[in-house]
Amino acid sequence: MANPTAAMLVIGDEILSGSTRDANMHHLAQELTKQGIDLKEVRVVSDDAPAIEAAVSALSKTYDHVFTSGGIGPTHDDITADCIARAFGAAIDVRADARSLLEAHYQNSGLELNAARLRMARIPEGAALIENPVSTAPGFTLVNVHVMAGIPAVFQAMVASVLPTLTGGSPMLSQTLRVDRGEGDIAATLSTLAADFDDLSIGCYPFQLNGVFGANVVVRGTDGARIDAATTRLAKELDL
Amino acid sequence: MANPTAAMLVIGDEILSGSTRDANMHHLAQELTKQGIDLKEVRVVSDDAPAIEAAVSALSKTYDHVFTSGGIGPTHDDITADCIARAFGAAIDVRADARSLLEAHYQNSGLELNAARLRMARIPEGAALIENPVSTAPGFTLVNVHVMAGIPAVFQAMVASVLPTLTGGSPMLSQTLRVDRGEGDIAATLSTLAADFDDLSIGCYPFQLNGVFGANVVVRGTDGARIDAATTRLAKELDL
Repeated sequence: MANPTAAMLVIGDEILSGSTRDANMHHLAQELTKQGIDLKEVRVVSDDAPAIEAAVSALSKTYDHVFTSGGIGPTHDDITADCIARAFGAAIDVRADARSLLEAHYQNSGLELNAARLRMARIPEGAALIENPVSTAPGFTLVNVHVMAGIPAVFQAMVASVLPTLTGGSPMLSQTLRVDRGEGDIAATLSTLAADFDDLSIGCYPFQLNGVFGANVVVRGTDGARIDAATTRLAKELDL
Repeated sequence: MANPTAAMLVIGDEILSGSTRDANMHHLAQELTKQGIDLKEVRVVSDDAPAIEAAVSALSKTYDHVFTSGGIGPTHDDITADCIARAFGAAIDVRADARSLLEAHYQNSGLELNAARLRMARIPEGAALIENPVSTAPGFTLVNVHVMAGIPAVFQAMVASVLPTLTGGSPMLSQTLRVDRGEGDIAATLSTLAADFDDLSIGCYPFQLNGVFGANVVVRGTDGARIDAATTRLAKELDL
């Protein structure tokens, strides 16, 4: 059976303007790969309601899961929750269960649960909360969209909360062979190998190190023995 | 006049599987911001022809410029050039101008210009070459799509080659104010500020440092005096 598929939607002007470097994509990619969920596409859009809604609608129709990052805090530019609700035609308001979590948290911390912070309890009707062990304000899952915070520590905690609830597939395994030769020298060998092992994905990722060109050949698949066979043959053919 | 708009398309299984961390998005975002071209969307797709073609078609219709990264090397998984050609219905084959560049380069380096390397001279009809001062094999511009390599050093050199040929807009300027307080405490102040300075974009980016929550408020726009006025007022209102 094919693995479940997923897309990620990163929301934030700060990444598109180059003032912040996204850190969540790489983390999610690694976690999904471990669980056998195939990340097929990532989109980054700005804090712009029509752009967020259009992307969520398109991705949620195409993939089994959509994971979003960013835009669920207390400030005026945090519009993700409302956009997700609109994309699915769901009502949204401050919800009692999310409000209770925030009340308990702010009571303990001595900070005021003001109107701005209460916005973080705006959860669409029918959504399930995603636990946030770092800073309490929850994420949520609506239909097949998992809505999470952009702060890396909080994003990672929410990923850890939500992933165990999802049905995974066969974990993607891989072996990497580093070749200190230009890609062009090994391309023909790789091409034949890829044809002979068409159940595997064989990627060639060139690098440049101290002025010398080399490549990492990554053999990926769900069958460890096949990956081993392909990698062993390649090493032999390249005299490694 | 509004700034030109742009999208980026990153092509590569290695990023979606989490084995490589993308480095090109952040670089391009910063360079475009300097030149006054607004990066509105980024997509990451796998080495899959239908996915690449669909993304290129959609993005090239929506934005003034599309910048792609990855998939133009000599190996079997380098399919970007052919996909771009197909997306525009352009013919593609080894082109004399690109072939000459490669012949000269490989003659000097003592390496063989074999069939695999010759694939890097496959350039769509009507495309303009993008210079590659690092490793010679050129990128190209077809219609409004700028096709560049994925290796960061080569990507950056190609960006430096192509950007000066494009008409920029008003460079986006910004000032950042670091606030060592939770977002929720400053949200109301920011909301009023954003309403009063609706020609600027005011973003609030929370962080967590040594267990303490804070936020960077980034004020962006093209008018330095307005940015200064907004930042000054904010600092005063927050007693910074």
